[in-house]
Amino acid sequence: MLESEKKQNTVKLGFKARIIAEAMKSFTTKGIKGVTMDDIASDLGISKRTLYETFTDKETLLLECVRQQEAEKEILSAKILSESENVLEVILKFYKATIEVYHKVNIRFFEDIKKYPKVNELLRQNGEKNRSNVIAFFMKGVDQGLFRDDINFEIVNILVREQVNFLLKAEIFRTFSFIEVYESIVFTFLRGILTEKGQNILESFIRNYRE
Amino acid sequence: MLESEKKQNTVKLGFKARIIAEAMKSFTTKGIKGVTMDDIASDLGISKRTLYETFTDKETLLLECVRQQEAEKEILSAKILSESENVLEVILKFYKATIEVYHKVNIRFFEDIKKYPKVNELLRQNGEKNRSNVIAFFMKGVDQGLFRDDINFEIVNILVREQVNFLLKAEIFRTFSFIEVYESIVFTFLRGILTEKGQNILESFIRNYRE
Repeated sequence: MLESEKKQNTVKLGFKARIIAEAMKSFTTKGIKGVTMDDIASDLGISKRTLYETFTDKETLLLECVRQQEAEKEILSAKILSESENVLEVILKFYKATIEVYHKVNIRFFEDIKKYPKVNELLRQNGEKNRSNVIAFFMKGVDQGLFRDDINFEIVNILVREQVNFLLKAEIFRTFSFIEVYESIVFTFLRGILTEKGQNILESFIRNYRE
Repeated sequence: MLESEKKQNTVKLGFKARIIAEAMKSFTTKGIKGVTMDDIASDLGISKRTLYETFTDKETLLLECVRQQEAEKEILSAKILSESENVLEVILKFYKATIEVYHKVNIRFFEDIKKYPKVNELLRQNGEKNRSNVIAFFMKGVDQGLFRDDINFEIVNILVREQVNFLLKAEIFRTFSFIEVYESIVFTFLRGILTEKGQNILESFIRNYRE
């Protein structure tokens, strides 16, 4: 490859990344339905034609946004894993980080995203890939004396994922805030599987976190 | 009303009840789709015409079956409530009773029932009616020192109901038994909301129950 071609590819990559970042910002703050390809092009100061040359349609662009988001989540997980002493610390750090992210997201984003089959398929596949890691993670928690040893983690993992899916259906938000529901899911679930040692860590986390 | 008319009505009522009981037995053991009005008539030794004169169609019959089942559930709840010392005892007795009932039910029954809109509407309405009672019940548990006082019971009540709905969707049973999943839902949920005092009662219940 010629030097000039290489440079052009890097420029293209940077351009794509800029579109993805801008589109994701719009989607998450305004919802997906409320943002058109026109809006995105105009926010970026580029022509609609240039945008469509880079991403065939809105679902393709959204798919790339979600792929990027999933990649960032994986980087965050790896960082938290490497910096934590035990599994509960990992969960609580991840909880804090996701709360901060979700806080900025318009509920419409979660409502709208369900309508894009390719995106849902990607998320489903990623969930599937993670499943065995998650079980290994729970077993590590048992070894660390933080999770009870009489739990069927495969089942409770499915159940907690169902609750999060339910959360993302957003019907519940007519009455309660996202944070309230998310907190109820995570804390009730954790209390349900923690040993006494684990409970003590959780309660002191909650006391600090409420302040 | 004449004496003879009264008697006829009682006979009719007894006849209706007999059909409902027989139909419910068939629906719960064979699933709803697998049972025709013909089957029910033949099991009862009556003509199809007589059956259709009493219940217009299968959904009407099913609706009466579910209404009967809900009424029985209410009688059971009242009995358990009057015989128990505290809210946790109520839940655990109810849990045991429902396990015994569910044990005899063919999974297909839960899969099939979702396809009858009138039945689902009835169940939804009953759930709605119960909601404020359930919250009052949880608050009683807080007063009795068995449930934590820092829980949003409205939210966790919705979440646990969603889990039971998910359970009744039956997809999960390709891998796990009904009892395993039901147990995981109930015990994990309870541990999530119980105080230490409550936990001790639960753990001793589980020890006895496993034997």
